[in-house]
Amino acid sequence: MAQAVALRESSRKAEIVAAAARLFSERGYHGTSIQHLADALGLQKGSIYAHIGSKEDLLFAVVNEGADRFIDRGRRAVEMEAFAAVRLRRLLVSHIETAIEHLDAATVFLNEWRYLSDDRRERIQMKRDLYENMVRRIIDDGINAGEFRNDANVRFAARLVLSAGNWTYAWFKPGGELGPTEIGEKFADLLIRGLEA
Amino acid sequence: MAQAVALRESSRKAEIVAAAARLFSERGYHGTSIQHLADALGLQKGSIYAHIGSKEDLLFAVVNEGADRFIDRGRRAVEMEAFAAVRLRRLLVSHIETAIEHLDAATVFLNEWRYLSDDRRERIQMKRDLYENMVRRIIDDGINAGEFRNDANVRFAARLVLSAGNWTYAWFKPGGELGPTEIGEKFADLLIRGLEA
Repeated sequence: MAQAVALRESSRKAEIVAAAARLFSERGYHGTSIQHLADALGLQKGSIYAHIGSKEDLLFAVVNEGADRFIDRGRRAVEMEAFAAVRLRRLLVSHIETAIEHLDAATVFLNEWRYLSDDRRERIQMKRDLYENMVRRIIDDGINAGEFRNDANVRFAARLVLSAGNWTYAWFKPGGELGPTEIGEKFADLLIRGLEA
Repeated sequence: MAQAVALRESSRKAEIVAAAARLFSERGYHGTSIQHLADALGLQKGSIYAHIGSKEDLLFAVVNEGADRFIDRGRRAVEMEAFAAVRLRRLLVSHIETAIEHLDAATVFLNEWRYLSDDRRERIQMKRDLYENMVRRIIDDGINAGEFRNDANVRFAARLVLSAGNWTYAWFKPGGELGPTEIGEKFADLLIRGLEA
């Protein structure tokens, strides 16, 4: 019984976080009020506050879930037993797939995270750094294995990979000619060609 | 006398547009009210409305000026009499310099332009397409001259150039180790290496 209540509680909370992701992505964090959220969910403001402490808690929940999604997928690519080029391709394709599958959360993660309070922004920054380090590690491995050019600038190559991944959500049109997987593959072709020894 | 009044008028308008760029960049378009703007400028709301029709006029002014800045600099790169690699490098370096020199306007141009009304968003989309076509033209020229690989994917290579340029503003820290020119050069090294025949 207590378990059923906890389950209902967590699914209601997930519903609120998903609605917040959509509204923050459409109207921006500062342009969204708890009233907008209540209207979108057909709830009273009081019911929302029964599940969350503040609007910023919701922003943190959306951004933090987004960060964890990228990190989980990134880790799988880093840990593959394969050539660096294969792992880098996997990471970039996964990144773009994740961003497009969760377009609202990705938009909030990328545009609105700067509105977090200092300590929460720092926690997210640590996750961003962790993720960037995964990309750098794959490129480093490729250089050490003689697979990538030994004069490649690891830092900028990693940023180029992340730029390609992060910028995609800004121009991606659902239902367009190419899906997220194909887009990731095309960028990977170009990036890997630039790195290969 | 009338000329002096017109000058004062246009400099006051420029001041309002600059303050709007800063506020839209800091708080988002939906999070900024004309009252915020009046407070930031030490003016009455009525004085602001003497210069502009609506908040959306200001968004359009910021975004449109931003677009024109990128296009002016891009055109200079396209029209250079030089190898495609030199022109592509010039365009990317100019792009990053422009984004960093006008960081507020670039942030608004990139994040907030989607809040424009349909007809204005279309006008800006035409300018974005024009700019992207400049990048594609340089890459095409390089392929036709045998300078770039003839199997390069022009569309994705152009998007990679723009991703690198556009994403920089999101992680750039003023006063950091590298300035905008050096960042542009590092990205250009990687991108051109990936394109060269």
